[in-house]
Amino acid sequence: MHLSKFSTWRHCPSPCTLSRNLSNTIRAFAAAASPPSKALVYEQHGSPDQVLRMVDLPPVEIKENDVCVRMMASPINPSDINRMEGVYPVRPEVPAVAGYEGVGEVHSLGSAVSNLAVGDWVIPSPPSFGTWQTYIVKEESAWHKVSKDIPMEYAATITVNPLTALCMLENFSELTYGDSIVQNGATSIVGQCIIQLAKIKGVSSINIIRDRLDSEEVKEKTKKLGADLVYTESQLSVKNVKSLLDGIPEPLLGFNCIGGDSASLVLKFLRQGGTMVTYGGMAKKPITMSTSSFIFKDLSLRGFWLQKLMSSDSTMVCRPKMDYLLNLVQSGKLKYEMELAPFSDFNIALQKAMGKHGRHPKQVIKF
Amino acid sequence: MHLSKFSTWRHCPSPCTLSRNLSNTIRAFAAAASPPSKALVYEQHGSPDQVLRMVDLPPVEIKENDVCVRMMASPINPSDINRMEGVYPVRPEVPAVAGYEGVGEVHSLGSAVSNLAVGDWVIPSPPSFGTWQTYIVKEESAWHKVSKDIPMEYAATITVNPLTALCMLENFSELTYGDSIVQNGATSIVGQCIIQLAKIKGVSSINIIRDRLDSEEVKEKTKKLGADLVYTESQLSVKNVKSLLDGIPEPLLGFNCIGGDSASLVLKFLRQGGTMVTYGGMAKKPITMSTSSFIFKDLSLRGFWLQKLMSSDSTMVCRPKMDYLLNLVQSGKLKYEMELAPFSDFNIALQKAMGKHGRHPKQVIKF
Repeated sequence: MHLSKFSTWRHCPSPCTLSRNLSNTIRAFAAAASPPSKALVYEQHGSPDQVLRMVDLPPVEIKENDVCVRMMASPINPSDINRMEGVYPVRPEVPAVAGYEGVGEVHSLGSAVSNLAVGDWVIPSPPSFGTWQTYIVKEESAWHKVSKDIPMEYAATITVNPLTALCMLENFSELTYGDSIVQNGATSIVGQCIIQLAKIKGVSSINIIRDRLDSEEVKEKTKKLGADLVYTESQLSVKNVKSLLDGIPEPLLGFNCIGGDSASLVLKFLRQGGTMVTYGGMAKKPITMSTSSFIFKDLSLRGFWLQKLMSSDSTMVCRPKMDYLLNLVQSGKLKYEMELAPFSDFNIALQKAMGKHGRHPKQVIKF
Repeated sequence: MHLSKFSTWRHCPSPCTLSRNLSNTIRAFAAAASPPSKALVYEQHGSPDQVLRMVDLPPVEIKENDVCVRMMASPINPSDINRMEGVYPVRPEVPAVAGYEGVGEVHSLGSAVSNLAVGDWVIPSPPSFGTWQTYIVKEESAWHKVSKDIPMEYAATITVNPLTALCMLENFSELTYGDSIVQNGATSIVGQCIIQLAKIKGVSSINIIRDRLDSEEVKEKTKKLGADLVYTESQLSVKNVKSLLDGIPEPLLGFNCIGGDSASLVLKFLRQGGTMVTYGGMAKKPITMSTSSFIFKDLSLRGFWLQKLMSSDSTMVCRPKMDYLLNLVQSGKLKYEMELAPFSDFNIALQKAMGKHGRHPKQVIKF
């Protein structure tokens, strides 16, 4: 395995090789490097459960503005899988440590760090490549302190999915009390967050789920989250879906994470002048719309990509939104299902995340 | 033929049936009605050359705020055809006088009209149903005075096509000097206007035309109008169309009036964050775009419909734009091909407009 990229990181000298009267200097110097890190690394692109291995990385120097964080938890998002597969448009060069978001505890600080203390919980903001390892060293400005009063798996996952849901609800239309939205993929974590965040804004949600054996059970669960209407795709193969609105106004905004026919179902609900935002393509099929829907119904089709948003205005815009979302978690108004997986069992968690063992909640690696 | 709708229009009484000492009153009253109108009327939807007939309509009362206009010219637009066919989403109830825009000369005025004079040239603004007739009576506010220093066929056609081109260039992106746009259907009148209006704004145009026998001739003609690049669809069946840009920057804005594969060619040119506006669907095929183009390339798909825009802000926003366009015509900076057709030969003009006799320039009925 070639890890030449990582070998440029500075090794921590062994204190026993140095004389006693230098012990103060030694201690200071030893404190200025991270512990060695256990990392999940892929050297080439491919199926994640084939290419990912646990590797020991040498200590990293902690400069005066750096913060060394002991990672506590990090989720397996679909985009992590796609990066390892090599099909995601923006991805680190191999060899690379996998992972993109997570939460950790401050382990040690550079001398000029002023706003963080050992023991604080922090998340990388904007999220960045390489969170699937036990120790990370980054400049103070790259970390955002979060409350320790929430389960760590929420802090670990607050950026990619809940922030996508919040930004999509706020960035495309001026939704107001009494409005409604429609979405497919309503059982995904983003979908669950959209339902709950819409409800908090006084906005109703119309939710489309795939047909499955336990459809009724899933509908009930989704309604308990706050969904106003939940339909399976087959229930929507009627000419006039508007008859199914049950008093809810036609939605101005729709969200699509599937594509193909499922995207067309979202479009069928939209009101004159409405917008559908695509943020995923689980069906791997394109989105198709008629000319008349563009011209006479004035529908707009847009896309959303959190990674692009985060790269441009993470600190000013996104951090307050993340704090808002974490507050909602703390007060019990935002929740979603996750499953913590021990670091050593990362391969089983990966396979679950890839759908190789049936349906499982979002997998979150606990280091 | 049932024209009960029109029979409610007030008939002009014959002066000879009235006594002499009422002659002043008679003259005043006679002046307060339009001449009878010869109109192109359809009683049912169908192929325009089958359902349209010339009909005599009775005089119409001219109220104090009304203006009676002798129509001079009115074009046959594709939307006129679609309205007669009954496939246009907003259309008058049958029986109806056809036509939607045009130009006329003020023939007589109601007593309270203050800003128009007999002989003025006026266009209906917003355009409205029923312009294919010799006399129209409408309130003063429904008419917009235009210069008499331009060929009447330009005044007759300035609203639907050139205004669409101008609004599409201005309403979707902030184009600036050195930017570029891409469009299909570049030989249409809207297409020709986009080329010339873009050039005036310092914006380059990349133009896509259908493959045809005289492609090279059409390319030369289009370049003479101001087109920077002109490609046939088959020339664009390369993997990387960006290699064909020849120094022109990737376009931020694209226009599609065809749909299907031709729309996809427009999309191939757009830069990151670009927008394609659909305003027609000549191929009668939908628009399809990949999920990744929405998410990672951040492309937006929108639609434009002049009729909706005109209905909301015609006077304040659209009239100054029409004046601007007519000034460009007057100074020779905006031109497009038209063919005047005598009113009596309306059926031949209709068939030409419907493409039944090969390619012809825009048909404009001269009353």
